[in-house]
Amino acid sequence: MKQTYEPKIAPIIAGYGTIAGPKEGEGRFAKYFDNILTDDKMGQKSYEKAEGMLYMAAANQALIRAGITAEELNCMTGGDLLNQIISSNYAAREIGAPFLGLYGACSTMAESLIAGSLMVGGGFMDRVLCVTSSHFSTAERQFRMPLEMGGQRPPTAQWTVTGSGATVLSNRGPGPHIARFTIGRVVDYGVNDANNMGAAMAPAAADTLAAHFRDTRLPLDYYDCIYTGDLGRLGLQLLRDILRADYGMDLGDRLHDCGNEMFLPEQDTHCGGSGCGCAAITFNGYLLKEMQYGNIKKFMLVATGALMSTTSSQQGESIPGIAHAVAVEV
Amino acid sequence: MKQTYEPKIAPIIAGYGTIAGPKEGEGRFAKYFDNILTDDKMGQKSYEKAEGMLYMAAANQALIRAGITAEELNCMTGGDLLNQIISSNYAAREIGAPFLGLYGACSTMAESLIAGSLMVGGGFMDRVLCVTSSHFSTAERQFRMPLEMGGQRPPTAQWTVTGSGATVLSNRGPGPHIARFTIGRVVDYGVNDANNMGAAMAPAAADTLAAHFRDTRLPLDYYDCIYTGDLGRLGLQLLRDILRADYGMDLGDRLHDCGNEMFLPEQDTHCGGSGCGCAAITFNGYLLKEMQYGNIKKFMLVATGALMSTTSSQQGESIPGIAHAVAVEV
Repeated sequence: MKQTYEPKIAPIIAGYGTIAGPKEGEGRFAKYFDNILTDDKMGQKSYEKAEGMLYMAAANQALIRAGITAEELNCMTGGDLLNQIISSNYAAREIGAPFLGLYGACSTMAESLIAGSLMVGGGFMDRVLCVTSSHFSTAERQFRMPLEMGGQRPPTAQWTVTGSGATVLSNRGPGPHIARFTIGRVVDYGVNDANNMGAAMAPAAADTLAAHFRDTRLPLDYYDCIYTGDLGRLGLQLLRDILRADYGMDLGDRLHDCGNEMFLPEQDTHCGGSGCGCAAITFNGYLLKEMQYGNIKKFMLVATGALMSTTSSQQGESIPGIAHAVAVEV
Repeated sequence: MKQTYEPKIAPIIAGYGTIAGPKEGEGRFAKYFDNILTDDKMGQKSYEKAEGMLYMAAANQALIRAGITAEELNCMTGGDLLNQIISSNYAAREIGAPFLGLYGACSTMAESLIAGSLMVGGGFMDRVLCVTSSHFSTAERQFRMPLEMGGQRPPTAQWTVTGSGATVLSNRGPGPHIARFTIGRVVDYGVNDANNMGAAMAPAAADTLAAHFRDTRLPLDYYDCIYTGDLGRLGLQLLRDILRADYGMDLGDRLHDCGNEMFLPEQDTHCGGSGCGCAAITFNGYLLKEMQYGNIKKFMLVATGALMSTTSSQQGESIPGIAHAVAVEV
């Protein structure tokens, strides 16, 4: 089963933008973010409204860097963690571009880049905006517990990143490009702990990584670095174990995880960052900027998603995972 | 702003399948459905589990008609109304194909056909499965009230269709094809009544229809028929009014609505059908079969979605709408 595709027309990364929350702005990637919030409610009445503003801010930053206006977009594609992807829908209403809504949980940054690559790389469109966001306070109350409860977080828990990242893909111009992408499958090893997302997603990341190297026959050391989305400290360890045991693959110190590196140990996030925003601000912040500085020539983002639903969890279902990969080269 | 695209490689409709609930099976399109349920819980413990089975059944029916197995799929793409599109995720887990999850509310049938057209029409893939579903009992309790409450439905209410439809797109073989598609924009006229979806979606349908005929310069009588998704009786009337008043367009008796025609008047559904399944079973049931019988040569589906969220509604937001169009020709 082939899962990896190389667009004939290279989707060029014409612009990108990030905005991050206060906690993320004190983390390891702080200096790479375009904007850092001091108030994660952004003066709004609800965190949901604040997340919508994050989304718009990242989108606008990417448009500015690409030197285009929203009217020049052929399409916007993206999603977020909230039910009915409301942050995306309300942002799409403001931006006014044709919109394809996605749901891939925390894999959405890669999923939107794949959708954008299909549009640009298939010769349909000239300029596409790919966006996603997450917010600690909207995600916690939707998926876990009311923040006001002050519940204790178990050691396997991850911290949903407050932030948004956006990328403009174009069929022309200078800049790095999406060299190839791998569409992930839904993989489920039976994990049903909403506070152990890394374990739920690691098998999907392994499946997609194995598919990518099987399809492309590239050597395992081809990329300067590979960043999985938000497996966190434990999930990354599990991924290494699964890759070794089930696929005989060892990616060594080229393999990193956005969630594992997002926060500093003293920030007390337990297993690290998670959420759509985690991969989004690492990709559009750290990775693309390091590429711009000439420190990275080829990398792959393998954004991972835990397709968790409170309804199906209550009905005894486990949490399926998915991971989509996009490889970027200068 | 161009919103309409013609795939250079025509995405051929190689297979399609439908399954419908008991009430839909007594409606106007009954004879066109492949399978009609007698028990809409399908012997499951929850309606959510039943909806997942609907999804699988439609997908399998489409694969059978296309004469392929799930292993031969390059990708599956789709979504549903449930939070985190759980019906789709669990079906994707069983089917095992690479999966791109979508969220477009009731516009998902057209959105998935557009995503599939990008994959096949852009030269990336050979065979893609596009699916969506909805279930009256899962949607009502998620978006409105517990069924057990027995609340009275206002005259503007529509009835969420229990059903699922699936389409296999291929780059070869006989069969009708997706001639062109129009990606919709998020349009919001400020409607905030969760029991008046037709009014929330009609402006989006008008916007997409106007964009389609503006982009293609096709005469308004080009298609044998145009079916909007699930505007219902009132929404269809509003669409006619908006088209006439804002765009000077009159599509006359070529313009129909899946929701308006799904049920018979004596079935007491007030304004008609709605839900992802409404457009899905009309498209994969009535429209494709009438095309197979030679009674329709060219038609367009304009599936409409109300991007409603209980969270944002409670926070005073209105309900944005979206509509995506796919034109099918023999």
